Amino acid sequence: MRVLIVGAAGMLGTKLALRLASEGVLGGREIESIALADVVAPAVPAGDVPVDTVVCDVASPGAARGLLAAARPHVIFDLAAVVSGEAETDFEKGYRVNLDGTRGLLEAVRGAGDDYRPRVVFSSSIAVFGPPFPEVIGDAQATTPATSYGTQKAIAELLLADYSRRELLDGVGIRLPTICVRPGAPNRAASGFFSGIIREPLNGREAVLPVARDVRHWFASPRAAVRFLMHAATIDTAELGTHRSLTMPGVSATVADEIAALRRVGGDAAAALIREEPDEMVARIVDGWPQAFDARRAAALGFVAEADFDEIVRVHVEDELGNAPSTMKRPA
Amino acid sequence: MRVLIVGAAGMLGTKLALRLASEGVLGGREIESIALADVVAPAVPAGDVPVDTVVCDVASPGAARGLLAAARPHVIFDLAAVVSGEAETDFEKGYRVNLDGTRGLLEAVRGAGDDYRPRVVFSSSIAVFGPPFPEVIGDAQATTPATSYGTQKAIAELLLADYSRRELLDGVGIRLPTICVRPGAPNRAASGFFSGIIREPLNGREAVLPVARDVRHWFASPRAAVRFLMHAATIDTAELGTHRSLTMPGVSATVADEIAALRRVGGDAAAALIREEPDEMVARIVDGWPQAFDARRAAALGFVAEADFDEIVRVHVEDELGNAPSTMKRPA
Repeated sequence: MRVLIVGAAGMLGTKLALRLASEGVLGGREIESIALADVVAPAVPAGDVPVDTVVCDVASPGAARGLLAAARPHVIFDLAAVVSGEAETDFEKGYRVNLDGTRGLLEAVRGAGDDYRPRVVFSSSIAVFGPPFPEVIGDAQATTPATSYGTQKAIAELLLADYSRRELLDGVGIRLPTICVRPGAPNRAASGFFSGIIREPLNGREAVLPVARDVRHWFASPRAAVRFLMHAATIDTAELGTHRSLTMPGVSATVADEIAALRRVGGDAAAALIREEPDEMVARIVDGWPQAFDARRAAALGFVAEADFDEIVRVHVEDELGNAPSTMKRPA
Repeated sequence: MRVLIVGAAGMLGTKLALRLASEGVLGGREIESIALADVVAPAVPAGDVPVDTVVCDVASPGAARGLLAAARPHVIFDLAAVVSGEAETDFEKGYRVNLDGTRGLLEAVRGAGDDYRPRVVFSSSIAVFGPPFPEVIGDAQATTPATSYGTQKAIAELLLADYSRRELLDGVGIRLPTICVRPGAPNRAASGFFSGIIREPLNGREAVLPVARDVRHWFASPRAAVRFLMHAATIDTAELGTHRSLTMPGVSATVADEIAALRRVGGDAAAALIREEPDEMVARIVDGWPQAFDARRAAALGFVAEADFDEIVRVHVEDELGNAPSTMKRPA
């Protein structure tokens, strides 16, 4: 089986490539080769599987066609995207990358021949949903996005479903929860603090909390997200029918739940590193975000997230901190 | 007020232009000029309002920009579309006209300057919905289209909402019911018989009924559709919030309801002209179509359809047959 990851230099793409290269199998089938494409050079993961890296802008005309001609992948992971904040500030870039980029990839698959029908796993987002929300959002919720990013993801979902219905490809869209705990440096995304208030204190650093403690949101770990992507690559799509996109399972947690979990793992010293600094604008943005889902369809298809926020913190400690957060090492 | 109709040579475009030109006002404001654009020359309606016709393919690059530069319309009706059957058989044409055409129009508006924010009335369709359906479909139904046409309309709705949210234009999408009774010659659309079994007998001609009499669907007259378009051009969009597309009211009727209404208007002689000739393929297609809606949002905003199928038949007799169907004039 040949695999292509588009957007391979991102956080999830890097972790997915690492996992595929180290396991060497996907859904019980041996991985012959992995092609990694992104606008910046993706890291080559260790492992025995041959890995090709391609630096290209998949949203530029012909780029996707070139990628497919070279690799003729059985499975394509489409992870390339401009994030929510950037799609909102740069209207044209958001549409170009998130809509035209994905459409160009689907079109390249369509143009690659009648006998070519790869599995396309598309990373969508819960941003396809917008207010007003029910308390718990079910699988039948309409996609009424409140951002350009969510609009672009919802459009890509529609394209994926139509191309799949017409048997031009075999698509699965997975609506990822907010990924938490995001590793790496703090960024300026409005959602950044959800990860920051765990990641920074566990590294012995202060973190700013811009919203109230009763703010609730929907989370899964990077490890769970990689598992979702791999599972989506191998499920029997006959069970999806024409509804090709699935809300992924996750953990509904408040900021207070997060802090309690941090305290249990990192101790009072860690929790003390959170500094409350209310930010009206962040509070207003987050107020328009979903809080909880009943992701029944995905669960029935075998997608599994963490059980609670404690597990999300433990996963972060295991995967990013070598199982030992600095606050656990310091005398309390 | 300056008005532009894109897709002005179609059945609804022609009727809308006629009505606007003869009334000379829209929402209480005088119409200064009407620009009619289509790929074939639109008919120039009688009336005192100056009318410009433009023959162009609005889906071709630059065409929409040219239209707006010339007319700088306050209200744009976007009616241009490849119909459902053609969008299904000609994949590329469907996406080019129904998706790229509408997107190009929205982009042209965006590019026409910061001080330009016209009302854009987009003719969407109940084809944005796909099975499985609840018995009566509410306003919160998710858009899961079962055709490429429905996919293209659903995508255009998402674009319209995002461009409106970003205050690039002021959009209203109206999801039209199946228009019945369609005037003109029988066509090969799968839905054609719904109109044919009324129109043809009232003209003294035989009509074929390819499905069972208990088949139920959702209808409005051409007159109601024109009224929807005009009302959408003038409503206060503040009440729409970010949800810019509305399912239009209509009449839920079975084929048996249609025939009973035909009999009441045209007599037994008319009803006797319907010949049952079951067509498995048509039956299967129609089986995937919605049957009834609770179009509460649109009703609250003042959109009104016919009260029952008898009224739909009477409207057809008044508007298309000079108030006298041929079967009414013949001795029974």
